[in-house]
Amino acid sequence: MSEPTVPAAEAAEHGGDWRPSREAVIDLLGLLALGELLAFERMAVDARLTPDLARRARMSEAAVGEIRNYRLLADRLEALGADPAEAMAPFMDAFGAYDSSTAPRDFLEALVKVYVGDAVADDFFRAVAAKLTGDDRTLIERVLETGSAAEFAAEEIRAAVGADPSAAGRLSLWGRRLVGEAINRAQGVAAAHERLTDLIGAGGDGSVDELLRGLTRAHQERMKAVGLNN
Amino acid sequence: MSEPTVPAAEAAEHGGDWRPSREAVIDLLGLLALGELLAFERMAVDARLTPDLARRARMSEAAVGEIRNYRLLADRLEALGADPAEAMAPFMDAFGAYDSSTAPRDFLEALVKVYVGDAVADDFFRAVAAKLTGDDRTLIERVLETGSAAEFAAEEIRAAVGADPSAAGRLSLWGRRLVGEAINRAQGVAAAHERLTDLIGAGGDGSVDELLRGLTRAHQERMKAVGLNN
Repeated sequence: MSEPTVPAAEAAEHGGDWRPSREAVIDLLGLLALGELLAFERMAVDARLTPDLARRARMSEAAVGEIRNYRLLADRLEALGADPAEAMAPFMDAFGAYDSSTAPRDFLEALVKVYVGDAVADDFFRAVAAKLTGDDRTLIERVLETGSAAEFAAEEIRAAVGADPSAAGRLSLWGRRLVGEAINRAQGVAAAHERLTDLIGAGGDGSVDELLRGLTRAHQERMKAVGLNN
Repeated sequence: MSEPTVPAAEAAEHGGDWRPSREAVIDLLGLLALGELLAFERMAVDARLTPDLARRARMSEAAVGEIRNYRLLADRLEALGADPAEAMAPFMDAFGAYDSSTAPRDFLEALVKVYVGDAVADDFFRAVAAKLTGDDRTLIERVLETGSAAEFAAEEIRAAVGADPSAAGRLSLWGRRLVGEAINRAQGVAAAHERLTDLIGAGGDGSVDELLRGLTRAHQERMKAVGLNN
């Protein structure tokens, strides 16, 4: 299939005539789509960790934004002539390993996982949007407009730590573990998917390692914002 | 709190001046809201039973209608001055017992559970709508307009039984077990919630037992419609 032409102005943003290949964009959208689908499922599943029906319902309602984002990404994959399930499949093992090594033991741990995961995902979306052009970039901007599950989780965590400051130590440790595991898996994905790594490092303004360092710094700020230590 | 006045024409439909009490309506809406919330969670959780990412995503997307219905019901409870979580709480044990006695072993069993549960719920909504007046009746009609998860499940079951007719026997047995358990739990709920039973039997046109017999007959027709025996 032929590559879509890229307007000169957009190509210039990426240092001359660089532009992502269709295959690299499909890899990226597949990774993002799977992340959204699994974030949705995880929230609905973890909602059961609280005996409090009001919180349980709020967690499930907050999950809906994730499945809406999944649909936006899946539609774009289809528009590119790709099968969403096939585009997502290569990343199942990495997400599966992350989830099995970070199963929350209670509702607060689940909320921290939502907060960290959703916020890191948003930062990642923002970072890669700059590497994309045309419809792909517009799509990522639309995904980022969706009301964030992170906002819901942040409010709940702040309230919980406010009510019981002794929870902060345990949750801070948990947050560090989540980010450690996530970076571990992200490095594995990058090593196994050269096209994706090339896209992220494109335009000469960053490597995967630099991106991960940036995400980690932003994460540390966010932990402070909900009363946790990094 | 005073009862809302009921227009004479509506009251007449219920055999004179009968009208449901605010408390009975709150019981009913609490039961329905919990049913929708748990149906949503169940679909997102059971989506994981298939290794097929395309089906898994479709199941999660089909679940969204249930949480939308939950929101409509919760909003109405709040408009009546009730706390949705408190209105749902009395029915948790019955739904919990149903779910723990009917855990699907695979994705097809999960689909049959969605199909049976969602369709029986829709029939129940239709039956009780006739007992309600004004905004409560309008609400139930809106809930019934939502694209049904049962349609998604029916298509998948039909395709699966078409591809492997030997699955029909096992799934038919499973469908009978689901309805048996559901009726069992419904009778328990009716026995423990007199206001609710009074509302269902109101207007002299039916008892809880008659309602359950009607739901069972409709269920048998629906099983045939997807290639299963009742």
